[in-house]
Amino acid sequence: MHILVVGAAGMIGRKLVAALIAGGAVQGKAITRLTLADIIAPEAPAFPGTVETVAADLSSPGVAATLVASRPDLIFHLAAIVSGEAEADFEKGYRVNLDGTRELFEAIRLESRTAPYLPKVVFTSSIAVFGEPLPEVIDDAHGLTPLTSYGTQKAIGELLLADYSRRGFFDGIGIRLPTISIRPGKPNKAASGFFSSILREPLIGEEAVLPVAESVKHWFASPRAAIKFLQHAAEIDTAPLGSRRSLTMPGLAATVGEEIEALRRVAGEKAVRLIRREPNAAIAQIIAGWPQSFDAQRAMALGFEAEKSFDEIIRVHIEDELEPSRA
Amino acid sequence: MHILVVGAAGMIGRKLVAALIAGGAVQGKAITRLTLADIIAPEAPAFPGTVETVAADLSSPGVAATLVASRPDLIFHLAAIVSGEAEADFEKGYRVNLDGTRELFEAIRLESRTAPYLPKVVFTSSIAVFGEPLPEVIDDAHGLTPLTSYGTQKAIGELLLADYSRRGFFDGIGIRLPTISIRPGKPNKAASGFFSSILREPLIGEEAVLPVAESVKHWFASPRAAIKFLQHAAEIDTAPLGSRRSLTMPGLAATVGEEIEALRRVAGEKAVRLIRREPNAAIAQIIAGWPQSFDAQRAMALGFEAEKSFDEIIRVHIEDELEPSRA
Repeated sequence: MHILVVGAAGMIGRKLVAALIAGGAVQGKAITRLTLADIIAPEAPAFPGTVETVAADLSSPGVAATLVASRPDLIFHLAAIVSGEAEADFEKGYRVNLDGTRELFEAIRLESRTAPYLPKVVFTSSIAVFGEPLPEVIDDAHGLTPLTSYGTQKAIGELLLADYSRRGFFDGIGIRLPTISIRPGKPNKAASGFFSSILREPLIGEEAVLPVAESVKHWFASPRAAIKFLQHAAEIDTAPLGSRRSLTMPGLAATVGEEIEALRRVAGEKAVRLIRREPNAAIAQIIAGWPQSFDAQRAMALGFEAEKSFDEIIRVHIEDELEPSRA
Repeated sequence: MHILVVGAAGMIGRKLVAALIAGGAVQGKAITRLTLADIIAPEAPAFPGTVETVAADLSSPGVAATLVASRPDLIFHLAAIVSGEAEADFEKGYRVNLDGTRELFEAIRLESRTAPYLPKVVFTSSIAVFGEPLPEVIDDAHGLTPLTSYGTQKAIGELLLADYSRRGFFDGIGIRLPTISIRPGKPNKAASGFFSSILREPLIGEEAVLPVAESVKHWFASPRAAIKFLQHAAEIDTAPLGSRRSLTMPGLAATVGEEIEALRRVAGEKAVRLIRREPNAAIAQIIAGWPQSFDAQRAMALGFEAEKSFDEIIRVHIEDELEPSRA
């Protein structure tokens, strides 16, 4: 089993590679070779088989063809520039998120013309594909009406994934990730950053800023759950997907107030006191256009699972991010 | 008012240009200049103002920029290769229907960087953007899950139209046309051809083949209604569309049996006897994946109107196609 991970240097990419190596096999076949690509060459992990690390810009001519020429059996396509950057730089967003994806899909199609080749392709999409109208709970038949260029590019990626799969060029599955919480690392400028930082910082005794009301509700899964989604997507038979190749992942619908209550239960009142209210109308307005909850029936029927409470999400963070470093 | 029609040589393009010339004005402004483009140069119509006819392949580098350099105030983008051809020739379909559309949108965006430029863009989409699941009546929030490459390319065009409009590069509106019936001209090989031919041929005393059961239901509008949709789209303020720039047009949900009953009322039993039943399982299977009916509330609220009966659709055909030639 030869696996190509495009976007292997990011947070999700690194955790996914570690989990793949720890698991050792996919679809019952031992992993013997890893090709890890990103815009800067990823660090090579400890791995008993072959590892290649490649600095690759998918949107540059010929790069995708080179990556695919070694005929990986399984391809994770995680590479993307994030929402804020795709909004700030229109051309870069379309080049990386749309052209890069299309170049990869085209490279696979063209590779299959010389000799039969039908890799599995796991594509990461996002709940940013949803926009307007925004019912309180979004079902699996709801339309994609993104309100950002990033969401538009992900929605187009989903459409291409479905058509290339239908035409038999690869076996694709798209995974719409919830907002990842608790995102490890330092606070960043993303509008969604506070959902993680109001837990992450107090857990290590640092202050965090809450820019919105406690009633704000959103859709979450832990980094650990996200990695399990991608691994499960690689394992399952795609036949039950029919023509709808992309799935909204299960998650936890929770308000900021519920996040804070969970923090109180897990880390006490002292941690909660480190959250400083600093209302920010601009952030509140952005968040108001975001989905609150989903009825992810299709994914759940296929065995995808997420956390059931924020207590669990906080415990996952402590286990995966805080306890290893204390050990 | 300078109008660019891309795809002006097709059936809809020619009828639209004739209707624009007959109307004389759009948004209360006299039409002074027409640029008519298609893959082969359209015939120049009689018009008191300036007419240019251009042979243009939008997907070739620089072609879209040249078309847009004269800064038309209103652009109709009708150009596409049809469903069957896009399915038979994967690369051509993506080149013409996706790259061509994107080149046009990009040319407008780049044109606006030298000096303010915000044309209205009317984009023709199709009910082929709908696929699975397929409720009996499809509402305006239903997702786009196309089952053909053509439908995929149209759905991507809608997403790009929305994002380019949101970013302020142009003022776009997408029109999802119903199946056009009665399509004038000779019988063709399209799977949908019989919906028109079982009326069109008997009306001129010729035999037609019906390959499916009379219970088959689908969604129709006349060519005249389609032209009115495009003209109305050019007239209206797009503010009420919000971020959802594409609209399912109203139409008539009717069974083949209802088509035949209308033919009997308008043209008598002799005409109906010219329909020869010749069941075709392949065609029946294709049609089974097509939408049957829509609840086009948004478009109706904005003043779009279609026929209410097949009697009306047949009368429109007689007036527009048969009586002029008898005169």
